[in-house]
Amino acid sequence: MKLTPLIKATMAFAVTAALPLVASANDELLKLQQDSKQWVIPAGNYSSTRYSELSQITKDNVKNLQVAWTFSTGVLRGHEGGPLVLGDTMYIHTPFPNVVFALDLNDSGRVIWKYEPKQDPDTIPVMCCDTVNRGLAYADGKIFLHQADTTLVALDAKTGKEIWKTVDNDPKKGATGTDAPLVVKDKVLIGISGGEFGVRGYLAAYNISDGKLAWRAYSMGPDSDTLLDPDKTTNLGKPVGKDSGTATWQGDQWKIGGGTTWGWYSYDPQLNLVYYGSGNPSTWNPKQRPGDNRWSMTVFARDADTGMAKWVYQMTPHDEWDFDGVNEMILADVDVGGTTHKALVHFDRNGFGYTIDRVNGALLVAEKYDPAVNWATHVDMKTGRPEVVSQYSTDQNGEDVNSKGICPAALGSKDQQPAAYSPKTKLFYVPTNHVCMDYEPFRVSYTAGQPYVGATLSMYPAPGGTNLGNFIAWDAGTGKIKWSDPEPFSVWSGALATAGDVVFYGTLEGYIKAVDPDSGKELWRFKTPSGIIGNINTYEHNGKQYIAVLSGVGGWAGIGLAAGLTEDTAGLGAVGAYKALSNYTQLGGVLTVFALP
Amino acid sequence: MKLTPLIKATMAFAVTAALPLVASANDELLKLQQDSKQWVIPAGNYSSTRYSELSQITKDNVKNLQVAWTFSTGVLRGHEGGPLVLGDTMYIHTPFPNVVFALDLNDSGRVIWKYEPKQDPDTIPVMCCDTVNRGLAYADGKIFLHQADTTLVALDAKTGKEIWKTVDNDPKKGATGTDAPLVVKDKVLIGISGGEFGVRGYLAAYNISDGKLAWRAYSMGPDSDTLLDPDKTTNLGKPVGKDSGTATWQGDQWKIGGGTTWGWYSYDPQLNLVYYGSGNPSTWNPKQRPGDNRWSMTVFARDADTGMAKWVYQMTPHDEWDFDGVNEMILADVDVGGTTHKALVHFDRNGFGYTIDRVNGALLVAEKYDPAVNWATHVDMKTGRPEVVSQYSTDQNGEDVNSKGICPAALGSKDQQPAAYSPKTKLFYVPTNHVCMDYEPFRVSYTAGQPYVGATLSMYPAPGGTNLGNFIAWDAGTGKIKWSDPEPFSVWSGALATAGDVVFYGTLEGYIKAVDPDSGKELWRFKTPSGIIGNINTYEHNGKQYIAVLSGVGGWAGIGLAAGLTEDTAGLGAVGAYKALSNYTQLGGVLTVFALP
Repeated sequence: MKLTPLIKATMAFAVTAALPLVASANDELLKLQQDSKQWVIPAGNYSSTRYSELSQITKDNVKNLQVAWTFSTGVLRGHEGGPLVLGDTMYIHTPFPNVVFALDLNDSGRVIWKYEPKQDPDTIPVMCCDTVNRGLAYADGKIFLHQADTTLVALDAKTGKEIWKTVDNDPKKGATGTDAPLVVKDKVLIGISGGEFGVRGYLAAYNISDGKLAWRAYSMGPDSDTLLDPDKTTNLGKPVGKDSGTATWQGDQWKIGGGTTWGWYSYDPQLNLVYYGSGNPSTWNPKQRPGDNRWSMTVFARDADTGMAKWVYQMTPHDEWDFDGVNEMILADVDVGGTTHKALVHFDRNGFGYTIDRVNGALLVAEKYDPAVNWATHVDMKTGRPEVVSQYSTDQNGEDVNSKGICPAALGSKDQQPAAYSPKTKLFYVPTNHVCMDYEPFRVSYTAGQPYVGATLSMYPAPGGTNLGNFIAWDAGTGKIKWSDPEPFSVWSGALATAGDVVFYGTLEGYIKAVDPDSGKELWRFKTPSGIIGNINTYEHNGKQYIAVLSGVGGWAGIGLAAGLTEDTAGLGAVGAYKALSNYTQLGGVLTVFALP
Repeated sequence: MKLTPLIKATMAFAVTAALPLVASANDELLKLQQDSKQWVIPAGNYSSTRYSELSQITKDNVKNLQVAWTFSTGVLRGHEGGPLVLGDTMYIHTPFPNVVFALDLNDSGRVIWKYEPKQDPDTIPVMCCDTVNRGLAYADGKIFLHQADTTLVALDAKTGKEIWKTVDNDPKKGATGTDAPLVVKDKVLIGISGGEFGVRGYLAAYNISDGKLAWRAYSMGPDSDTLLDPDKTTNLGKPVGKDSGTATWQGDQWKIGGGTTWGWYSYDPQLNLVYYGSGNPSTWNPKQRPGDNRWSMTVFARDADTGMAKWVYQMTPHDEWDFDGVNEMILADVDVGGTTHKALVHFDRNGFGYTIDRVNGALLVAEKYDPAVNWATHVDMKTGRPEVVSQYSTDQNGEDVNSKGICPAALGSKDQQPAAYSPKTKLFYVPTNHVCMDYEPFRVSYTAGQPYVGATLSMYPAPGGTNLGNFIAWDAGTGKIKWSDPEPFSVWSGALATAGDVVFYGTLEGYIKAVDPDSGKELWRFKTPSGIIGNINTYEHNGKQYIAVLSGVGGWAGIGLAAGLTEDTAGLGAVGAYKALSNYTQLGGVLTVFALP
């Protein structure tokens, strides 16, 4: 973790002007993402709306959707993320060993090239929640892959040949790569996984031209590490003050403090700000780390060129439940109380749906998007702090006490599976979990590369039913659920909204479903080979709209199946709740592409 | 291999009368296979025609065929065989570890039960040509599985619970199970794999009620082992004479003589005869085993109750090319020169299509079904012997001499992938290879459980083109190709013919194709997740006709992909020829079910 000298060096580098070549790469990416025929960014666009202007597939004809072609990746276990499409080529990726394929759309997915990194299989055991990878990034003729072993590699998009690669961190210390990179201007951004191993999180920016580190901004640590300006970086409108990233930690605990950054990154080109969230503070035993544990569980808005934070907002100070804040930040114009804001909408693991002014970080709305949420009564809109319910405070209940009936469970009312936003309906379509838990913290000591969890969990459906998930429509202006479709299992797939007035999502049993954006009424479903934890994308090719999704059950919810675990409390408490999943699906790894006849 | 005392004991047992319960199991199976809505026998029926009376899907509407649902088996590598369908349930199987699933047809393949045998992974290295399994058998409320480790298990078809299991042989000696069992009356028949390990082949019959061995009939050995009657068993009309299964071997070589029986078994209920073929003599170095090596490479007609052979016919005496005789025997009425015969039609690895009178074993037609075949000029219709061309005789050329340009290659003009026969067109639809080889025999010594191959091979497309396969229509009465559709790779999938005037087959790239039975014209194609080496089946459910196929590339042709081999001569010479396959497909294991909209 001794990367500080490197950071200092590269901070200086970061202020140099972008090269002309590189600026054009950014222009290309901006232009490409405005062309709905392509799908060039994991979330569809910098705003992470997962919305497409394509409208051939409509709510009237979606019932006729059929499979156009399929492609097995040759890898089993959880397939998160989704394909990129550029022109005649589709790029897909797999879980460990993170194979990348370029597939020919003119020939039913013939393999143009295949890239298979050589990675040490010892990386697998330090991947907390399946061997997932959330996807690729494209820019400047390159495909970027963040490997499980933290290597960031740039491949020639035409040939698959390595252009450069750089090792970002060390799996032997529990650090792994699971996220999809995001290219902004001349840099490719990646985060890090490993909050269950005491890894200290950061967002790192590498030059797309040569793979040199431009800047690295930690979630916690001194200001030189966090790239927080004591005076200029604000928290709900106030300056954060000096060394805010160490002040709420006991001693040096921030060095193994978590706050990892394995989710999604959004970007506002006008504001030149990158948005993302940090994860749980390490360990999961809150008694061991008194204080607010800043800036774990925090939304960051950072300057894309320098990494300096413009504002921060900590959603869950002093986490007691593993409510990582890494879920996607969706950038949209949202009307709150009659005023339209340049907003950031975020469905946090903690069960609150946040609407935040993305210019200044002002908190506009914070409401529960699952009625089961009980760990806090509400969020105080002045302080931004949740009002914690004592009964569900694992810190107040103490070590070796099993706090029962906490909602949501550690995997949240929603995990990383990204929601979609339709500017037509002005609604957010959110894949959710409806799961509660018992949580018993215990004392744990830190050893590099060893689990640093410190809690035993078990999970089960929220009271009053057996369904473990809902797919919901959310009004971010009022903080209200518009409609809610119950699902037997958590919805662990990313959603897609389209101008054809259809919203798509996948289920853990393996169904891809199309629903009416206004009512949630099911319009169509199809059983793919395996459970879907991938994100549904769309593109147009030769004048025809396609829908594409990776199936392959796994992820945290599917870890029992993926890793062959059977103990109820295994898989960080998830295995018990999802046992019935094996009655519906088995491991897989298949791309399925749909089109109208 | 010392099973002889057991055989003797069970031979006595075999002559006792069948129990009434057991007779009804046979009646049920006869009745079920006449109901086209079901698919209760791997080959569709006892005659192995792979023909269905279902006619909803026609040559006019097949272009509208679409995917109804899919199911990932959770296992990669080669998926041979195909599903069974009984009522509302589909039964599928996987390669090693030979998982069996019962899937609910009323709920898009929900898992009713799953059976996963515990098998020693050390079995995998003794499986010569991928970890394949060719399917399940049904009778009397039981599903029968012949595991890789040679265990034969009877499962309760409703629950998947083991009813009985019995260990047939020993993988430590190179013996493995890859075949689909066939139930005939009160017995379930299995063969054995391991010709590349000097395993001595046999057909074994176990009682379906309790798993006790009823009889075992070896391919070679004394008459008490082979169940050949010196006087009554005939070879082209003449009695075979005493100990014909040892007389053409040097010394005790028959004990490690191969003649394994890993293909398909057919049955004629009127004649009460079971038909099947035996494989290559061991070793592949012909110099080491002078003589005809009877009864390797032989078609057997055996009494289903006793195992006693009625007739035999050796297609390739003293094999010099690994032309196993295990391919399916299709029972059909065939007009030869104006006379209709109860015939057996067999497309042998050696490249000859045989039409044989199945009552008495008389040879009616023996013609090349791939024009590339060059190792023999013709079959002498009097002696039944092929006229070997010296240039391609690996025995005449001798040890450590590379005989070049032999056609077909060791994997034959066709391997185990079964052909179909349509009584409407009276044509046979045959998946074929169009591959030649260089073959260099060398001296090898036998060690139990170690490879006993004794030849180095390399394979390549037949001269004059690059295509490695053809899908052909064959007139078995005249021995002529009616039409031939070239394919870039060997056609390694089983075919299906239907009363709807459509013929289906799969390709190694992963396409399932429908063609016109009269012209071979392609009517429809769809790219399944992985290369198809499974057999295409059809059934009707709730009034709708379905087509089902397992994709999952592998088998001998796909062994390079399946086992990650790259050396051209690896995989018994197959790897080099099929290298380009990875440009089209990757490992998989997915059931795809099709229907009209």
